[in-house]
Amino acid sequence: MRATLMYEAGDVRIEDVPDPAIVEPTDAILRVTRAGICGSDLWPYASLERRETGRPMGHEAIGVVEDVGAEVRNIKQGDLVVMPFAFSDGTCAFCREGLHTACVHGGFFDGYGISAAQAEAVRVPYADGTLFRLPVGEDDALTPSLLTLSDVMGTGHHAAVVARVAPGKRAAVVGDGAVGLCGVIAAKRLGAEQIIIMGRHPDRIALAREFGATDVVSERGEEAVERVRALTGGEGVHSVLEGVGHGASTETAVRIARPGGAVGRVGVPQETTIPAGEPAFYANVKIGGGPAPARAYIEELLPDILDGTIEPGKVFDRTVGLDGVPDGYRAMADRESIKVMIKP
Amino acid sequence: MRATLMYEAGDVRIEDVPDPAIVEPTDAILRVTRAGICGSDLWPYASLERRETGRPMGHEAIGVVEDVGAEVRNIKQGDLVVMPFAFSDGTCAFCREGLHTACVHGGFFDGYGISAAQAEAVRVPYADGTLFRLPVGEDDALTPSLLTLSDVMGTGHHAAVVARVAPGKRAAVVGDGAVGLCGVIAAKRLGAEQIIIMGRHPDRIALAREFGATDVVSERGEEAVERVRALTGGEGVHSVLEGVGHGASTETAVRIARPGGAVGRVGVPQETTIPAGEPAFYANVKIGGGPAPARAYIEELLPDILDGTIEPGKVFDRTVGLDGVPDGYRAMADRESIKVMIKP
Repeated sequence: MRATLMYEAGDVRIEDVPDPAIVEPTDAILRVTRAGICGSDLWPYASLERRETGRPMGHEAIGVVEDVGAEVRNIKQGDLVVMPFAFSDGTCAFCREGLHTACVHGGFFDGYGISAAQAEAVRVPYADGTLFRLPVGEDDALTPSLLTLSDVMGTGHHAAVVARVAPGKRAAVVGDGAVGLCGVIAAKRLGAEQIIIMGRHPDRIALAREFGATDVVSERGEEAVERVRALTGGEGVHSVLEGVGHGASTETAVRIARPGGAVGRVGVPQETTIPAGEPAFYANVKIGGGPAPARAYIEELLPDILDGTIEPGKVFDRTVGLDGVPDGYRAMADRESIKVMIKP
Repeated sequence: MRATLMYEAGDVRIEDVPDPAIVEPTDAILRVTRAGICGSDLWPYASLERRETGRPMGHEAIGVVEDVGAEVRNIKQGDLVVMPFAFSDGTCAFCREGLHTACVHGGFFDGYGISAAQAEAVRVPYADGTLFRLPVGEDDALTPSLLTLSDVMGTGHHAAVVARVAPGKRAAVVGDGAVGLCGVIAAKRLGAEQIIIMGRHPDRIALAREFGATDVVSERGEEAVERVRALTGGEGVHSVLEGVGHGASTETAVRIARPGGAVGRVGVPQETTIPAGEPAFYANVKIGGGPAPARAYIEELLPDILDGTIEPGKVFDRTVGLDGVPDGYRAMADRESIKVMIKP
């Protein structure tokens, strides 16, 4: 089959690789009908060191089940399913608590020796625990929004949950990428009264406003902190959704939080320490977040997609075939595209 | 009156100073019947630079109201009251939410130009919002425990609340000082099934066990992390109470947390950043805490002191008059004493 391999920063190729096959009796094989390029794919795209064998890429997919292992019970050949970016057994203590990204048998796709999704097919471990059957047909108009359940919408929702967004509260979203935009959707959905989007790309800001953002802050650093304070009666916001992961963006996130407020970090951290530890302490600001248990959130978010209440699929502003994937990476890295959908 | 002044690290003196007087109509003047030396007083005791005028010390007190300003309504002359370590108006949005340490008119005693408590008398701003009337007499046997409501018991409780201690959960307390010991009491009181005390002073460990600690970890760093994992089925603890504030202790606190768990920081941070930001992220560990709203917790904790359910006053293992205060600082700094009570 054809698949996406990354050989070093900026070097993404589509190549013929062996078809994935059932390895464990709990596996399933999906024919990928849609995949996504994730903002987190841009980190290796910016920094991966040259390697001899390409790194398989992709962890967001919708697909049709082609084959299942002998122990798979709930997922059947022919099912249309969404694949969260982490696989999980669905039965361990952490899965039962809803933290599937800490599953004792779980792990991540792509880059970890497991199959990857920007390809014609993908092997999915723990199919019963990982996959979620979709109640639509393969080319339903809702497909882009349903694809966001594999990662970006669940991730934005996770930031909002960890940041304790609640009715009547003030929220700010740091970063206007696809995660930040889904964070706006999540904050609106959970009842935030004020939603400040922090970013500077006109197309993304326009989409953020469509999703429910009430204010825009395009400044950075100390000026951004002052602007948010000015917009919030001097207090800061109850909930900060951090969708970037840089030290500077995290510092801003902590410093715009209201005393007693919370920061939900979902941007992959690019620094080992958390900045602004002292302001966080003196203001009793809580800092949480991490890889979103996207699997746990599908049941909650799906009905709102099916009835059109939320339309996170709008973050996809470009669709490509596999041949278009290398240029899709470039377009996202150059901020030409918010998020690219792949139709293999 | 006589009061405690610090002139530089290690240099604590008892001197005659002017009596405190009503400055604002919302003030009260207390005759201090008991005060405490706080673990946080040991930071300036270790590092204060030489100064010409001594810094007034002390922020934990029980006292009798000697005088009140014209606008004080609820506190009366002759009342025996406990004074939390921060003053607060009791009426602003933050006070109403229970975060009195973010009060818009609030602040801290000692070292901030406000009166201080290791003295014969202290001026208390916002007396109605700050002070809490005690239903006992001046020399009641419960006095040591009641004095802990001004800071150390409320601080240990805050760590437990932020760390989300709940029935049946596993907790660990980093640091066996008075705050850590009160953290053990708080964790037990909130229903933790396992309480691991991390420290190495035999007298403190013995008290921690009496307070409800079920396990002791005396190792540090990576060995401590491994020991906690071994004691918790490899998972780590749901709740970590951090009562030290060093970078190393905070790193340990984050790394012993179970995925999805929470760290409550109440040790005054000695570093500007929070370490172990990446492990915290990948394990979805929440990090919160800060200056405890001791005032908010008095109503919840007081009944348990009055009926003997908890005895936090046991952290006081030495009582001195004002003349004994300089040696009290030395004894606490040398770990000869857990916590010193002052009877001016």
